[in-house]
Amino acid sequence: MRYSKSPSAREVSSAASLRRRPGQVVTLGFLATIAVGTLLLSLPVAAEGERATFVEALFTATSATCVTGLIVTDTPVFWSGFGEAVIAVLIQIGGLGVMTLASLLGILLTRRLDLSSRLVAAASTRSVGLGDVRGVLTRVLKIALVVEGVCALVLTGRFFTTYGMPLGEAAWQGVFHAVSAYNNAGFSLFSDSLIGFVGDPWVALPISAAVVVGGIGLPVIAEVMRALRTGRRPRRWSVHTRITLWMTGVLLAGGTLFFLAAEWTNPGTMGPLGTGDKVLSAFTQSVMPRTAGFNSLDTSQMHHETWLGTIILMFIGGGSAGTAGGIKVTTFAVLAIIIWSELRGEQDVNVFDRRITPGTQRQALTVALLGVAIIIVPTLWITASTPNISVDKILFEVTSAFTTTGLSTGITAELPWFNQLVLVPLMFIGRLGPITLGTALALRSRQRLYRMPESAPIIG
Amino acid sequence: MRYSKSPSAREVSSAASLRRRPGQVVTLGFLATIAVGTLLLSLPVAAEGERATFVEALFTATSATCVTGLIVTDTPVFWSGFGEAVIAVLIQIGGLGVMTLASLLGILLTRRLDLSSRLVAAASTRSVGLGDVRGVLTRVLKIALVVEGVCALVLTGRFFTTYGMPLGEAAWQGVFHAVSAYNNAGFSLFSDSLIGFVGDPWVALPISAAVVVGGIGLPVIAEVMRALRTGRRPRRWSVHTRITLWMTGVLLAGGTLFFLAAEWTNPGTMGPLGTGDKVLSAFTQSVMPRTAGFNSLDTSQMHHETWLGTIILMFIGGGSAGTAGGIKVTTFAVLAIIIWSELRGEQDVNVFDRRITPGTQRQALTVALLGVAIIIVPTLWITASTPNISVDKILFEVTSAFTTTGLSTGITAELPWFNQLVLVPLMFIGRLGPITLGTALALRSRQRLYRMPESAPIIG
Ligand SMILES: [K+]
Ligand SMILES: [K+]
Repeated sequence: MRYSKSPSAREVSSAASLRRRPGQVVTLGFLATIAVGTLLLSLPVAAEGERATFVEALFTATSATCVTGLIVTDTPVFWSGFGEAVIAVLIQIGGLGVMTLASLLGILLTRRLDLSSRLVAAASTRSVGLGDVRGVLTRVLKIALVVEGVCALVLTGRFFTTYGMPLGEAAWQGVFHAVSAYNNAGFSLFSDSLIGFVGDPWVALPISAAVVVGGIGLPVIAEVMRALRTGRRPRRWSVHTRITLWMTGVLLAGGTLFFLAAEWTNPGTMGPLGTGDKVLSAFTQSVMPRTAGFNSLDTSQMHHETWLGTIILMFIGGGSAGTAGGIKVTTFAVLAIIIWSELRGEQDVNVFDRRITPGTQRQALTVALLGVAIIIVPTLWITASTPNISVDKILFEVTSAFTTTGLSTGITAELPWFNQLVLVPLMFIGRLGPITLGTALALRSRQRLYRMPESAPIIG
Repeated sequence: MRYSKSPSAREVSSAASLRRRPGQVVTLGFLATIAVGTLLLSLPVAAEGERATFVEALFTATSATCVTGLIVTDTPVFWSGFGEAVIAVLIQIGGLGVMTLASLLGILLTRRLDLSSRLVAAASTRSVGLGDVRGVLTRVLKIALVVEGVCALVLTGRFFTTYGMPLGEAAWQGVFHAVSAYNNAGFSLFSDSLIGFVGDPWVALPISAAVVVGGIGLPVIAEVMRALRTGRRPRRWSVHTRITLWMTGVLLAGGTLFFLAAEWTNPGTMGPLGTGDKVLSAFTQSVMPRTAGFNSLDTSQMHHETWLGTIILMFIGGGSAGTAGGIKVTTFAVLAIIIWSELRGEQDVNVFDRRITPGTQRQALTVALLGVAIIIVPTLWITASTPNISVDKILFEVTSAFTTTGLSTGITAELPWFNQLVLVPLMFIGRLGPITLGTALALRSRQRLYRMPESAPIIG
């Protein structure tokens, strides 16, 4: 029972190959980048002291390219200036690569949806052309340059003026942390990440801002920038942008309150700070699980319930088609809206006066529950093979790897090498999985042959 | 904008009140049963030694009525014969009450679905009449009597002949454990539950069989019994029955293999046993998380990964409209089938040549994710307020309470009284929540006024 194509066969096959191509090209590109990175980081010149082992080089290259930020070595101590530069370049390639891929897939998707809703068979708009790639790449680079530039300038100034660093070192620190922040990588050249700057808004806020902008995704940045130029009112913005902005606000506010409530008196984290610094550190901590991975409080000293809350924030992640990981805020929001509509007895699943398509609902369910499954399996495995580490620490680390967050309770460096290697494919799957899966599901043409009679098994 | 009713106003309002009534009546009935049980268990005659505190009596009465089986006191040591009898009666009322409620709601649901699919407005079949209640109750009591009777006879014989109990004691032990097993309650009159019988198939198997039959649900039992009489082939059974039987088989087989793999060498559980006893204990352990709560291996000695696996099995639970808890196997199966269909690019969500309605899909999502949310909140709270207990033990205990399983790593009795009280409403919500929620969602009439334009925010 073959489905007989309605557009011409040539057209469909060319569309199909173009449809498949962006994901394949970027997957191969990531693998090649990781391979080259591993090679470079294995060189004696990359390490400060003894040369890196294969596992150390592979783990670090994967963590940098997938903008995860988990580390098995102390970045500033272990790696030389050359090694640090390699890491920065890998982060930049990885972050911009994912942003470009996701944006191209987004264009494809929008055209496809426009097409099917308008019922116009304009074959030329069904594929991504060279012009699109050039356009997206230019835009991705421009925005990155501006955000990273501003962030690097502020940081460099602060490091130079207040912390007495020589200008060269201040500039390198500024650039590295700006790149690491905008690409949501979370690598730091300070052994204790941002803990030394817990009360300094001139370091915490520019980094947080770059993280949020990078993690909110290109479609939202582009739409807000266009709106600022044209004065288009927020009520007329796309549903995607409005959901993303709302969820980002809700999660930042909720996260700040959660960290304040959970850690206020903890002597290992917020306890010793003044009220202002407490609020600043709580805000910074609420930005970082989604999914930058810097920390200005000591993660290993946090309460267990704070870890659980952080795990949930990491799992939700940031915006689509940006540098953030996780299942994405829109995925989470769609699931929440389905439940809300169902409890209210609505016939449709509506948000912002738009009806969310059943296909989108199933995609959200698939991306979220597959994410849960992908986290459970390595958690079980590492728990079974590393009995001296508590389960919530392992769940934290696995979630951090899958969502490419990079926050750590400190166990990654302690894990046996074979379990460090378990995290390598997990970072890769976490980086490219939800994006390519979500788009692949949305893009696929579905056969409409005949329908089965309905059935409603008892639920609950 | 009011929806104008198509059936007569009287008809709709009577249907609405009948629709609401079964759930309300049973909720009030449960609360009354718990209140009376608390009172009886507070009497000095109910305790062997010192009289029970209010929290002990309330917790035990709730745990028995909600057929959970979590305990704050050692049942055979703390309670007198009178107290044990009260517990057995509460279990019987609770188990049969839930089965009756769920079956009545199921009848309502079937009629409603038949109605809407046939587009026939036969008002008389839209409600549950006294005849239905009598019919269901008779059938529920008959099946319970047969299954509990057979189980009790086998157990009594075994206890009398092999374990040298006097006949009276053997009979009481047999009846109590048969009632506790069929109603999936998991209360035991042995301080170490079934650990003393780990290698005895004449105790483990009748109890496991009663647990599976009670937990598989009345609709499935009724359909299989009818099929045995009429010779109707399994291929023609209802989708609900086929999903439930398949999932039960898969989970029992998978659970057995999981426990064998995880615990084979554990000196605290399976390690010292011979191969045959290992398999028997693994099978018994795979039956109990769904959701009976007996244990023939020492739960507190299991590995952490075994706890995680058990948590997942408890969350899935048993069949609908039976004595089992959890989100139910059909709910889990529907979610799995949605994901599978989505990954395969099917337009519809089909199983056994039937299309699962979008409404059913949303209900499954709602029941499952609300279940996750309801488990996360008390887990966070208890973790924050009881810092000396590890998170996975707390998650285990909270899941056990919500899914009315009653398995325990041993911390429930250790928890401070205010956290024991947190588990009381959780057991109640876990017992009545998924059933009433699932049916309420399915029964509700949805307004069809106008539809919003479609929107597909980016997922993943
Ligand atoms: K990161
Ligand atoms: K139970």
